[in-house]
Formats: sequence, structure tokens, C-alpha cells
Amino acid sequence: MSANKKARTQPPYELLYWPGIPGRGEFIRLAFEAAGVSYKDVCNESEDGMKIIGTLTDQSSTGSDGNPPVFAPPALRVPGEGKNGAALVLYQTPSILSYLGDRLGLSGADEAEKSWILSHTLTALDVNNEAHDTHHPVSMSLYYEDQKEESLKKATDFREKRIPKFLKYFERVLKGNEAQGQGKFLVGDGLSYADLTVWHVLSGLEFAFPKEMEARKKDYPLLFGTFYDSVKETKGIKEYLASERRKEFSMGIFRHYPELDRQ
Amino acid sequence: MSANKKARTQPPYELLYWPGIPGRGEFIRLAFEAAGVSYKDVCNESEDGMKIIGTLTDQSSTGSDGNPPVFAPPALRVPGEGKNGAALVLYQTPSILSYLGDRLGLSGADEAEKSWILSHTLTALDVNNEAHDTHHPVSMSLYYEDQKEESLKKATDFREKRIPKFLKYFERVLKGNEAQGQGKFLVGDGLSYADLTVWHVLSGLEFAFPKEMEARKKDYPLLFGTFYDSVKETKGIKEYLASERRKEFSMGIFRHYPELDRQ
Repeated sequence: MSANKKARTQPPYELLYWPGIPGRGEFIRLAFEAAGVSYKDVCNESEDGMKIIGTLTDQSSTGSDGNPPVFAPPALRVPGEGKNGAALVLYQTPSILSYLGDRLGLSGADEAEKSWILSHTLTALDVNNEAHDTHHPVSMSLYYEDQKEESLKKATDFREKRIPKFLKYFERVLKGNEAQGQGKFLVGDGLSYADLTVWHVLSGLEFAFPKEMEARKKDYPLLFGTFYDSVKETKGIKEYLASERRKEFSMGIFRHYPELDRQ
Repeated sequence: MSANKKARTQPPYELLYWPGIPGRGEFIRLAFEAAGVSYKDVCNESEDGMKIIGTLTDQSSTGSDGNPPVFAPPALRVPGEGKNGAALVLYQTPSILSYLGDRLGLSGADEAEKSWILSHTLTALDVNNEAHDTHHPVSMSLYYEDQKEESLKKATDFREKRIPKFLKYFERVLKGNEAQGQGKFLVGDGLSYADLTVWHVLSGLEFAFPKEMEARKKDYPLLFGTFYDSVKETKGIKEYLASERRKEFSMGIFRHYPELDRQ
């Protein structure tokens, strides 16, 4: 199906996420870009991005139009798809991806593949959260500088124990699916939102821990010899990465503090 | 539908999780118990529970019978439901709950409710993970005693900032759904796996931080005045909680260290 045809049959999706950073919104963006389906990146396309998120996560809201309140961004708004023709509002990255995956052709060929795709995505998002915690191990609301000592310990554990565990796991998944996926796909014989999610987390780890990743990459021939570049060259993703729509990593979830990397 | 009738039309579900503790396996158990659907709690019903988990998470496995390897327990095994009549093996709690929710009648009345139920579950499981991190803020593989200083800081932040944020959020969800859910259900007018998950996390918080929770409960009249007891009295759940199948909290995710509670 061509991107244009898909675009015509899809509702006008709206992504609501903090402007200016990839963050957790990026997993949703990658799904749209790979599927060639148009979407509105509301807060990056508006002057009032921060204000829109403020309203979305208003601590006194009990929801609207039959939707529950949103705990935290990202949220997906789909006009016309909610109760009685109102907008549907979803929150939590894996829930949004699960909903969109079915509609964008990124959730596998059957029920089993659909479940594995969600599972692998959740595992990759766990790594994402752990990467965040390397610079905020004590409190999300304190600055990194105020928890630097704990960060050094947390990052060491993350680099030495957790990163290899996750890399090895996804290498094994690719190996187990090699007959169908040829090292390019984690599940079945086509691209899924799990591939996109794992890929983005790997690229974030390379940004945050370049020395650590450089030293480890060679141990995972499918993950870094085949999978990583294959996703990067996917139609839709390649164009997106070359565009201004792709925000650079900076001070979001993945941060490069040289002192937290391998010395 | 009676429990017996459901049991006859369901495949022979097998839960694979560390024996002896509630842990993340508990969210799956609660779904089966509330639905009145039989399941085999494999590692609690065998002498070799620890060994079974060791085999399940073997670090050299690339999967079996067309299933990917399992990153970590819990896993769900469903004989006959996988590729070519083999067993289907799923991992990651939210993915298992999403799969089971559809089959056990615990995932809402339509697609929107299904997505919200998954979203709220993910939020509750985030709290679950953060509660774990209060006693393991630096490393999962070190003892609590070796990261006690950091734990004191992390637990203070969790109690003062995160617990009230989550409690307030779920109070708002119940409020927004009060017309349908009467304070008893987070989504729609029936029990879902989100209700069970939020309930178990609340009971874990009460075990781990009894003083903190006692001081805060009164601020959330729907959550603690209606919802909490309603779930506890649900048919299936009430009997389960009174049974020996319900393992007590001890040294798993939710732990009671008096020094980490409100002083």
C-alpha cells in the first residue's frame, strides 16, 4: 500500500509531547514515519507547545469527552474515534503503539506476533527508563548535579550489567528469528514497531555511552552488523532521519555526560 | 458465565514465575482468579520451581517452538496456541495481561476502553517498579544493605512526590468515570485487569509504607473509600485472598523496611 493511499484512509492523528526533544514521543513518530502515514506533531508545530502539555496533564483534570485524564505525555489524540464521535485520547507509549501498530501495519501477521512485538517493545522501553535513571537515580525532580555521586554508581551498574544483558537478549531474538527475519526484523518477516523502538533505544545508548557501546558492539553481529543499519535505511525512516523533524538527543532521556561513560 | 463454563472453553494456561512471592506474577494470578478461569501456577506447584525459571531464562536460548526467548519472568505458556499447534509463550506482564484480558473478559467493552485499561495498567506497573527501586536505587544485583544510603533518599522522594502523584491520578480517573464505574471501576462499568493491577500495587504500598499510606489515604475518598474494598470483595478475589495460593509480601518488590517509611 502506498503512503498516499494509507494517508487517505487514516484519521487525522495528533501526537502530544514535549516540544524540542525526541523523548518518549519519538517512538510514536517513528511508527508514523515508517508507515508513511501523516500525523500532526502538535507541540512541535505550535508556539504554545509547553502550554499545551500543561493543559493536557492538568493535575485537577478528570478527563474530557469520555476520555480519562492523561498521567503524562506522550498522548495520542484521534479526532472522531472516541465515544459518541468525540476525540479519542490515549496515553502511555506502549498502549499508543499497540493501538497504532494494528492500524499502521506494524504489529505482525497474527496474534502471537502481535503479543511478542508488544513484549519486545516493553523490554526496550525498560532500557529507555533505566538509561534515564542513570542521570536521575534518586529523584526526577532534582538536577543531575544534585545526584551526581549516585549517578556514577548507577551508570556503572547500567553499563556493566544491564546494557550487555539487553544487547545479548535482542541478539538472541534476532538469531531465533533469523530464518524469517534475516537479522533485519525481531519478529516475523516484516518491520514492526518493536524494531523501531529497539533501534531508537540503541541509537540513544550510542549517544549517551559512545565509548561503552563502541567497545561492546562487536559482540552482537546481528544487532549491529545487520539490524541497526537496516532499520536506519528503511523507507520513511531514512528520509525522516535526514529531515528537520528528527530532533537531536540533548538533555532528555538519553544524555551524554562523559563521566558516566566508560573511562 | 459461570467459572466452570469458562474453564471448559479456555486452554490450559500455565503461569511461569519465581515461586514463593507475589512479585510480577501476581498481576496474572489476579486476572485468572477474578475471571474464575483455571490456571497452573507451575513453579509454585512444583519442587523444581527455581530450576524451571532458570531454564526459561537461559541466557543462551534463542527461543523454542517458534517463540522468542523470554527476557525475564513472568511468562505465560499456552499449550496448543502457538505456531503449528505448539505452545505459545509470552513474556512481559502488560503484554500477558493484554492477551489474557481479551480472553478472560477483563479488557473493557470496546477498543477505547481496551486501550485505557492497558494504559492505566502500565501506569500502575510504573509505580510497582519505582517501589522496587526504593530499596534498589543503584543496582539490582547488590543487596539493599549495600545501597541503604541511596535508598533512604530514593524512598523519601518516592513517598513525598511520587506516591501522592499516582494516588491523585487514580482518584481523578475514578472521579471521571464515576457515572459508569461508581468509584468501583477505573474504566467503564465492569472489572478490568487495570482495577486488579492498581489494587495490588496499592496493597503493596500499604505493606511497604504503612505509615505513609495511613497518613495519605483520607485524601483519596474514591480510591480508599470505595475502590480498594470493592476490588478486595470481588467474587474470586475474596476467595483467593483467603486461600493459601495468595503469597504474602516479604522480600520481593514490595518490602517493609521501617527506616524507608515515614518517620
